[in-house]
Amino acid sequence: MEWFHEATLTAGIYDYRYTVKGCGVWPPYGFKLRQNVLNILRRLLDEAGHEECLFPLLIPKSLLDKEKVHIKGFESEVFWVTHGGTTELDEKLALRPTSETVVMQMFKFWIHDYTDLPKKVYQIVNTFRYETKATHPMIRVREVTSFKEAHTAHATYEEAEKQVEEGIRIYKAFFDELGIPYVISRRPEWDKFAGALYSVSFETITPDGRTLQIGTVHHLGQNFSKAFDVTYLKPDGSHEYVYTTSYGVSERVIAALISLHGDERGVVLPPNVAPIQVVVVPIPYKGKEKEVELYSREVLETLKGSGYRVTIDDRQDVTPGGKFYYWERKGVPLRAEVGPIDVEKKMVTLARRDTFERSTCSLDKLANYVGELLSEVMKNLKERAWKRFKERIRRINTLNEALKTLKEGLGIVVVPWCGSLECALKVDSAGLKVLGSPLKGGGEDDVGNCVICNKEAKSSLRLAYRTF
Amino acid sequence: MEWFHEATLTAGIYDYRYTVKGCGVWPPYGFKLRQNVLNILRRLLDEAGHEECLFPLLIPKSLLDKEKVHIKGFESEVFWVTHGGTTELDEKLALRPTSETVVMQMFKFWIHDYTDLPKKVYQIVNTFRYETKATHPMIRVREVTSFKEAHTAHATYEEAEKQVEEGIRIYKAFFDELGIPYVISRRPEWDKFAGALYSVSFETITPDGRTLQIGTVHHLGQNFSKAFDVTYLKPDGSHEYVYTTSYGVSERVIAALISLHGDERGVVLPPNVAPIQVVVVPIPYKGKEKEVELYSREVLETLKGSGYRVTIDDRQDVTPGGKFYYWERKGVPLRAEVGPIDVEKKMVTLARRDTFERSTCSLDKLANYVGELLSEVMKNLKERAWKRFKERIRRINTLNEALKTLKEGLGIVVVPWCGSLECALKVDSAGLKVLGSPLKGGGEDDVGNCVICNKEAKSSLRLAYRTF
Repeated sequence: MEWFHEATLTAGIYDYRYTVKGCGVWPPYGFKLRQNVLNILRRLLDEAGHEECLFPLLIPKSLLDKEKVHIKGFESEVFWVTHGGTTELDEKLALRPTSETVVMQMFKFWIHDYTDLPKKVYQIVNTFRYETKATHPMIRVREVTSFKEAHTAHATYEEAEKQVEEGIRIYKAFFDELGIPYVISRRPEWDKFAGALYSVSFETITPDGRTLQIGTVHHLGQNFSKAFDVTYLKPDGSHEYVYTTSYGVSERVIAALISLHGDERGVVLPPNVAPIQVVVVPIPYKGKEKEVELYSREVLETLKGSGYRVTIDDRQDVTPGGKFYYWERKGVPLRAEVGPIDVEKKMVTLARRDTFERSTCSLDKLANYVGELLSEVMKNLKERAWKRFKERIRRINTLNEALKTLKEGLGIVVVPWCGSLECALKVDSAGLKVLGSPLKGGGEDDVGNCVICNKEAKSSLRLAYRTF
Repeated sequence: MEWFHEATLTAGIYDYRYTVKGCGVWPPYGFKLRQNVLNILRRLLDEAGHEECLFPLLIPKSLLDKEKVHIKGFESEVFWVTHGGTTELDEKLALRPTSETVVMQMFKFWIHDYTDLPKKVYQIVNTFRYETKATHPMIRVREVTSFKEAHTAHATYEEAEKQVEEGIRIYKAFFDELGIPYVISRRPEWDKFAGALYSVSFETITPDGRTLQIGTVHHLGQNFSKAFDVTYLKPDGSHEYVYTTSYGVSERVIAALISLHGDERGVVLPPNVAPIQVVVVPIPYKGKEKEVELYSREVLETLKGSGYRVTIDDRQDVTPGGKFYYWERKGVPLRAEVGPIDVEKKMVTLARRDTFERSTCSLDKLANYVGELLSEVMKNLKERAWKRFKERIRRINTLNEALKTLKEGLGIVVVPWCGSLECALKVDSAGLKVLGSPLKGGGEDDVGNCVICNKEAKSSLRLAYRTF
């Protein structure tokens, strides 16, 4: 976490020095990164027929109270607005921890008959949790600045289930584009979203071996539609409650990409979301200043013309070495160095941020070559992250061994499981965090015997010890 | 207001039925309109060197308290968070009414020496006011969903003043692009932003004759930098407090464009921000259904290929007349009708939303023609709005006549003024709202004698009676 705080601050991505605990600032460079990441998500959601909306922040207690399980899950960690000016409000208002209750109130207005279904909306907003545990920049915050929450309504249970699958597919595509490895688990019964029939979560593992939940998808059945009386008219003239789902990701995904791809020198940004993909650094030599400057601009314009996000660092009071250091810490994927020899030969020297490899290319082939290099950086970041991730997951057949291995620093252990809630709870009470079990068809074998009851395994449990 | 509520709800632009007073929802169509409007603003700000950021929502009382005039102006209308779960917070937190105090805290970290200046940032966020007066959708709300606030810091008073001028220039360009007429006034001393040296505001007039403030620009001098101890190192080695400005607009600008351009049938959207610029409506005839359908798709693809935002309404269970009505109420600037004769002649019939004029065009010239029509709609909306606006402003030489005329329904009256605060206050206490005086060089003559003291006028005052 020390590395993370320092690296994101130095890079200009995130500033966690604001006076309120758990509230961070996105400075300009970080804001652009955030937008690029969120725009991938917007594209994936829009392509799948979701529509972006904006719902209010304030939720009256009576509205939050309507779904009884939901409020139980949230009431102890909600911020409450109690006063307007010096006046005490008639009813206290929660800062949204999530917006199921708000959206359901509007769905009641928006959904009338079966032609209104499915209804698929999302918003990207700030949400709030009164975290009492230690907060961490971007990962455990009181103001979640970038919560993308999707809410959908359907005619049948099965259609809602299909929507859960679509949500999973979208998040897989999203994390894949960012090179973030993950496992997908059906969360245990006692750890599902408050108000859900079941919850599915995506987990990755940070470099220090802790699991980090980066996305969740929930089948809400008719729990919310019954609480909010949201029905639709069926073709046969009868009314039925709609079935709903919700799924969310937050800036944790940005925290994940930063911590997974970074190195000892700082942040390494994936080329597809890097605010700057290439920085041109002129390396002037005495007597050649003008030539180097002009040629550097030519390199800049060539890359700009090909649509890359590129900038030039032509500061006079910083040495080339100082510039290298500066842009490395900002995580820019490629550096184009231009010295007198490059000018002479009409070449450019390129340095990769991920491997520090250097290579040269002639100016006339530069645009294509940079495209190839950026693809290679992307591919390497993704492969490297997946390789490390897989090394941190192991299949183990006894609980003692699982606990020992996790305490030694492994990220996730998979143990065989009979499928009963009773055994899962026993695992949980052994001091291990049960992340959940793999989804059916996930390709993981369920051989062996349950670590608790020793009966034949029908599934498995993913366990962690150190989590965020 | 009844028209506004009904028109925006029917169009799918804004839904004001949420349970908390003064909090509205942006459904998908309205959200797209909002984005298109905000993206014009982003472009203008970015081009002028501003950088988008994101700052926290919650402001501790002690931070808000630092600038004494500022807190006085806001303390009675701020929402306060007092509890996290069931725990009372050590210090209550305000929901930002505006973010000067938050930004200044960060500027203290970000500004070190003269090379860090000017610093120009902005954010587009929700802000909150505990409005005790009657609330109105989009115009007087408790959650302002779309507050664009810019904050800048400079080395000298003069540079900050130049920045105020740039802010004014940007807002003029912004309102001009949306066809919204305005006057720009220097607000009276007693009505400036809490903490400012002076404030400039943009006002328009709604169809019912009320003035609506749609933008403000403030020179904050060193008031905030002194309160927050934000200094910079000058080239001579000494330190000085920075000079700051701030300027903001909100969704009021969207309320303005809707109410100014709309008509008795509902919303009329300016083509440059309309989520849909052209709707293709097939008008099938018996026996010609297939031809009409195919040709309608050809029209759709032609317009799509030329980059227009276009959709087709191919619903089977709605009549063409029903479709006309539907899309008129959504304010789509152009309707392309395709019937059997159009198919035969390879023509398209186009109907303008603003004038209801119909014209025809051959398919091969369609893309250009639609472009011309959209430009004409834009031009007409703008001219019409400015014409009406100017009819609602009159220069009058006595206070009694001014009051009478305003009470009869005129929007703004301009009266000669000697320039003294004393006289301006007397006007104010006569039951008139003093909007302010024209900026120098605004091209308005200051002839005549002050309506109060009868001395030679050095300026004038703009007065209103019914305001939002």
